[in-house]
Amino acid sequence: MPYPDRMARWQPNASERLVLAALELFEERGYEATTVVGIAERAGLTKSTFFRHFPDKREVLFGGDAMAGLLADGIAAAPAGSPPSAAIAHALDAVGRDVFHAERRAFGARRRAVILAHPELREREALKGIGLTEAMRAALERRGVAALTARAAAELGALAMTIAYEHWTDTPGGEEFGAVARRTLAEVREAGAAF
Amino acid sequence: MPYPDRMARWQPNASERLVLAALELFEERGYEATTVVGIAERAGLTKSTFFRHFPDKREVLFGGDAMAGLLADGIAAAPAGSPPSAAIAHALDAVGRDVFHAERRAFGARRRAVILAHPELREREALKGIGLTEAMRAALERRGVAALTARAAAELGALAMTIAYEHWTDTPGGEEFGAVARRTLAEVREAGAAF
Repeated sequence: MPYPDRMARWQPNASERLVLAALELFEERGYEATTVVGIAERAGLTKSTFFRHFPDKREVLFGGDAMAGLLADGIAAAPAGSPPSAAIAHALDAVGRDVFHAERRAFGARRRAVILAHPELREREALKGIGLTEAMRAALERRGVAALTARAAAELGALAMTIAYEHWTDTPGGEEFGAVARRTLAEVREAGAAF
Repeated sequence: MPYPDRMARWQPNASERLVLAALELFEERGYEATTVVGIAERAGLTKSTFFRHFPDKREVLFGGDAMAGLLADGIAAAPAGSPPSAAIAHALDAVGRDVFHAERRAFGARRRAVILAHPELREREALKGIGLTEAMRAALERRGVAALTARAAAELGALAMTIAYEHWTDTPGGEEFGAVARRTLAEVREAGAAF
């Protein structure tokens, strides 16, 4: 047992096994030729288990509504008086701790490559992005941020998150996601000021 | 002939007849129950004419790539040295003259109501919005705007366009689209500065 600590931590649950099986099959066979039954078989699970976790094949790489909830909670928990960009930075730190942690970086790079190669997945990703923007907008409004400021801040926050994710997955062994996100937010803030 | 001038200008071409027929049928029967054949019949045209103008039923309210081209051309034609928001304002003036002119406001309000009522159409609208943002980003970069500034400006410009369209269609007899868009761009600029 060369890496007992790591192996003890790495006990993929059904949902993670399905995600990894889907990613492998999309890489090997392409998205079209992969079926839900095939994904379940590769994961050693049943089709009905698949449908308890995901509504369809397109959703398997997008993790349901967990990310939207994480962003909303992170914005709500930011220190009182934080400007919108700081509240979003607080949320992206939480995302870095809970989802985009070091062990997920290589998975993230493979996931991005598969999405880029498939228009249906790019489409789903775009719609997911709109859902995340809306979650951030609503969370900022609940903090008392004016409606239009919340809308603009959520757009800029979503852009920063996208750029940070691209950079983080492109840079094996680089900074952790939260640090990349904070730097990107500052850059986007400057770019927004030049509007 | 009470309004000869107006009638002379209002000679809908095949594409416009199909759009109006589709809108009527979506309103009367809902989106699901409407077929491409039904739309063509209502417009007094054939199914093959429909498919010369639109790839599918979902696209009929979204006008292909014309809007993206109009935005890109408008940004390209803005006076040298304009900041990104002013170049976008120049493009939205052109959109107001060529597409969102006074005669289209009532149509726009009906179109928005139908889209809001149908998730498939909201999805297509969201994807169209991403295409418009990308067209603005690329046009700003071709003017020499730095890559990240162009990306942030295009997001804020798309947000201003959405808000201005909502306001314009909600206000019968109100200001023309270009004027609404300029005011909205200034408001979004201020909201972006509070990020």
